[in-house]
Amino acid sequence: MKYTIAVIPGDGIGPEVTNQAKKALDAVAEVYDHIFLYKEAQMGSCAIDATGNPLPKETIETCKKADAILFGAIGDPKYDNDPSLKIRPEQGLLQLRKELDLFSNINPVKAYDQLIKNAPLKREIIKGTDILIFRELTAGVYFGKKETSKDGKSAYDVCSYSVDEISRIAHLAFKASESRRNKVTLIDKSNVLETSKLWRKTVTEIAKQYKNVTLEHMYADNAAMKLILNPKNFDVILTENFIGDIISDEASVISGSIGLLASSSIGEENALFAPVHGTFPEAMGKDIANPLASILSAAMMLEHFGLEEEADAIKRAVEKSLDLNITTQDIKGKDKYAAATSKVGDFIADYI
Amino acid sequence: MKYTIAVIPGDGIGPEVTNQAKKALDAVAEVYDHIFLYKEAQMGSCAIDATGNPLPKETIETCKKADAILFGAIGDPKYDNDPSLKIRPEQGLLQLRKELDLFSNINPVKAYDQLIKNAPLKREIIKGTDILIFRELTAGVYFGKKETSKDGKSAYDVCSYSVDEISRIAHLAFKASESRRNKVTLIDKSNVLETSKLWRKTVTEIAKQYKNVTLEHMYADNAAMKLILNPKNFDVILTENFIGDIISDEASVISGSIGLLASSSIGEENALFAPVHGTFPEAMGKDIANPLASILSAAMMLEHFGLEEEADAIKRAVEKSLDLNITTQDIKGKDKYAAATSKVGDFIADYI
Ligand SMILES: CC(C)[C@H](C(=O)O)[C@@H](O)C(=O)O
Ligand SMILES: CC(C)[C@H](C(=O)O)[C@@H](O)C(=O)O
Repeated sequence: MKYTIAVIPGDGIGPEVTNQAKKALDAVAEVYDHIFLYKEAQMGSCAIDATGNPLPKETIETCKKADAILFGAIGDPKYDNDPSLKIRPEQGLLQLRKELDLFSNINPVKAYDQLIKNAPLKREIIKGTDILIFRELTAGVYFGKKETSKDGKSAYDVCSYSVDEISRIAHLAFKASESRRNKVTLIDKSNVLETSKLWRKTVTEIAKQYKNVTLEHMYADNAAMKLILNPKNFDVILTENFIGDIISDEASVISGSIGLLASSSIGEENALFAPVHGTFPEAMGKDIANPLASILSAAMMLEHFGLEEEADAIKRAVEKSLDLNITTQDIKGKDKYAAATSKVGDFIADYI
Repeated sequence: MKYTIAVIPGDGIGPEVTNQAKKALDAVAEVYDHIFLYKEAQMGSCAIDATGNPLPKETIETCKKADAILFGAIGDPKYDNDPSLKIRPEQGLLQLRKELDLFSNINPVKAYDQLIKNAPLKREIIKGTDILIFRELTAGVYFGKKETSKDGKSAYDVCSYSVDEISRIAHLAFKASESRRNKVTLIDKSNVLETSKLWRKTVTEIAKQYKNVTLEHMYADNAAMKLILNPKNFDVILTENFIGDIISDEASVISGSIGLLASSSIGEENALFAPVHGTFPEAMGKDIANPLASILSAAMMLEHFGLEEEADAIKRAVEKSLDLNITTQDIKGKDKYAAATSKVGDFIADYI
């Protein structure tokens, strides 16, 4: 089969890790006789530098035409400490999510046996954890009206949600939990926020259509605590955009390494696959960044194409690299035996 | 000296634990020759039941006249799953914060040596952690305009901040860090939110007045991760209301037990002291809830009065109860030697 893949390396270590994912895909193409056609596109800080626009029109077009999008990371420290800058790299990603209506960000969080020793949490707390987080991605405070007053003395951001925006991702979450452990935890702040009340009401209603799924309610503050105290409590987590941003990153500590977490952002027509980690500017260009999250994003993309066997081939290769300890320094420590980014990519491709 | 203390036991285990704090205060009064005059007041679910109002006028009056407020907990499960209810217990607390302008919520988070074994985090990660969280408490999305549309199909919440609202708590945070480890970490989401940009701009400006304090910037998602990966990175954390709500509860896992965390909410004229934990409805009326957070809230109140020696007396008694393992089942496990709430209170009072 032939697939067109829009590749957006982005900023920081994005290009380096995305290259390794392409190696893995090329290996899959060879073994399983597929054609993956890569269309490179720009987004983020690099796109601002090149075109003045964090999301050039061509990038949107390339993405719309592609069967899926493989994305690296976005952002640049030079924008972080100058809040007066009007254009920011991140706007590119937010706009892309909106343009393609990628409303559901799906983050699987598992404790990898080989990495449990690296996790900050005790083994007995995290062993066996298997969580799937559904974060709403195209509404909420990210996309509401926002403004700083002319005199610079005040600012506001509006968080808004509609029943439809809540419903479509809620259905995805319930369906996913049906082939898992039949439990959905809705995280909100409905003791304070109107939008959260709407979430709770809407999701409680939808839950009635999924008779064998249990719906659990949890306030965001309590959830941030329970996620660490007792991660095995969770099966599927469902939440809105901003809470989901915080909770997803927090949950990454359970896996033993954020360097292995991949996520997908799904809409009706399009799908984007990317590592959970960011641009890691300190590592940029040094061939030391962990490419496994990007490689596993490629595996998620293959699953999305229905290529389960091919995805498994990548996942087995990743497991093998962990077993053999052919890993980057974030996992292995900064000793001289840590493998370079490109070497890990080569190993994965060879093994496939 | 004579002090008038407004006591708001509130809901759930609030009354039980607040009673133990009063025992500790009575012991201090006896030993150090003070008079603590308690004025009981209602707030929350119990106040709704009694008066229809989660914050009766008399409660506000009592609090305004008092030298400080000792508060228990608020909320009732019967309100949690019915988002259509117009009155909620939590409104009482939010209104009280606003009425008294308690703009700064201060949460100390320390890893207690005796409790490290109970924490979900590894010893080497948390040992020596000592964080002071400043959470803005009277603005942001908690107090912005909020509405559900008439047809029930959409809802919004407005988050807003002014430079003044940010400045006053920022100064408190910087001042606090000067007598600590001279570092303030501002947590925001300024790569997306206008209010966060205002926070970053305002706080960066204020930082210039505190030459020997280092200001660190961190996005909320990243902070939720770093707090668990490397809690010792943090000295003073400064953040807005909603992020602060999530981060404070998350940080509680570092202490080894949320049952020991006390917090203060400070304004120009008033100050409220309360446990970080909530109403813990499952334990209500069973004499099993941990009273130490409430007792330590009383100690914070004494510090606020400038009674350092008296506060130390309480803290030493708490340490002793931990050393001797005279603790409730949340710390000790559900074996038959766990002490009852009232027994822990008695021990603390006796020891003082
Ligand atoms: C880069 C940033 C705008 C983005 C977000 O907050 O959504 C990122 O943190 C993420 O989670 O994908
Ligand atoms: C009870 C609730 C409204 C409150 C809050 O969210 O502020 C609580 O969680 C807290 O942190 O004091």
